[in-house]
Amino acid sequence: MNTLPDWLSQLRFDEHGLIPAIAQDAADGAILMVAWMNAEALAETAAGGHAVYWSRSRQRLWRKGEESGHVQHVSDLRLDCDGDVILLKVEQEGGIACHTGRRSCFFQRLETKGQPVWVSVDPILKDPEQIYK
Amino acid sequence: MNTLPDWLSQLRFDEHGLIPAIAQDAADGAILMVAWMNAEALAETAAGGHAVYWSRSRQRLWRKGEESGHVQHVSDLRLDCDGDVILLKVEQEGGIACHTGRRSCFFQRLETKGQPVWVSVDPILKDPEQIYK
Repeated sequence: MNTLPDWLSQLRFDEHGLIPAIAQDAADGAILMVAWMNAEALAETAAGGHAVYWSRSRQRLWRKGEESGHVQHVSDLRLDCDGDVILLKVEQEGGIACHTGRRSCFFQRLETKGQPVWVSVDPILKDPEQIYK
Repeated sequence: MNTLPDWLSQLRFDEHGLIPAIAQDAADGAILMVAWMNAEALAETAAGGHAVYWSRSRQRLWRKGEESGHVQHVSDLRLDCDGDVILLKVEQEGGIACHTGRRSCFFQRLETKGQPVWVSVDPILKDPEQIYK
């Protein structure tokens, strides 16, 4: 895109032209994942109603669910007070947002009895090999 | 800190030594704010049970509530699958997380009827001048 429309030019993208986006389950408020968007990804998300991110590892648009089928239907798009984080309220197709086959990417919990340690506490709902076959 | 303990060295801090942290209301799942932590902020948060961030604007530790009284009591600390985002489940003292006097920083909603525009949709609960007097 050349000149950004107002609603996009108001955002504070980082030095890589990216802004973090939180996907939250619209029904029960669970935080599913955090990924990155550039202006194009956000414009397509707003226009199409499905979450589109920017894959930093692949350096291309990532239409969530394009391989896994785990599309995110966006019902609400929010921006924070300083304009540098996006919040998406979504309905998660298949009930799985994480590439590990879990509902949410935030499945590691800090256990602080004794020396702190990250422990995986949420179940794998589907074998990742079945998701990305 | 010199050598980091295991649970901190597993994290993927960015090139500035920071990791984004989402504060979520532990009771109803509302997303309150996103801020940044360095290793020291996260260690203090885990040890003390109150959210401590790194203020990028002031370049110092920011013990949330130190001026406003709006302390965040942390009941759960989560890490995402690729180790680069923290999620805090908190009880928000005063019911206000945002410096604008709103409950949440995500008070701007994208209205997409016609040309998209960000609209403030959540009420100001307390005059910021009363918060930071």
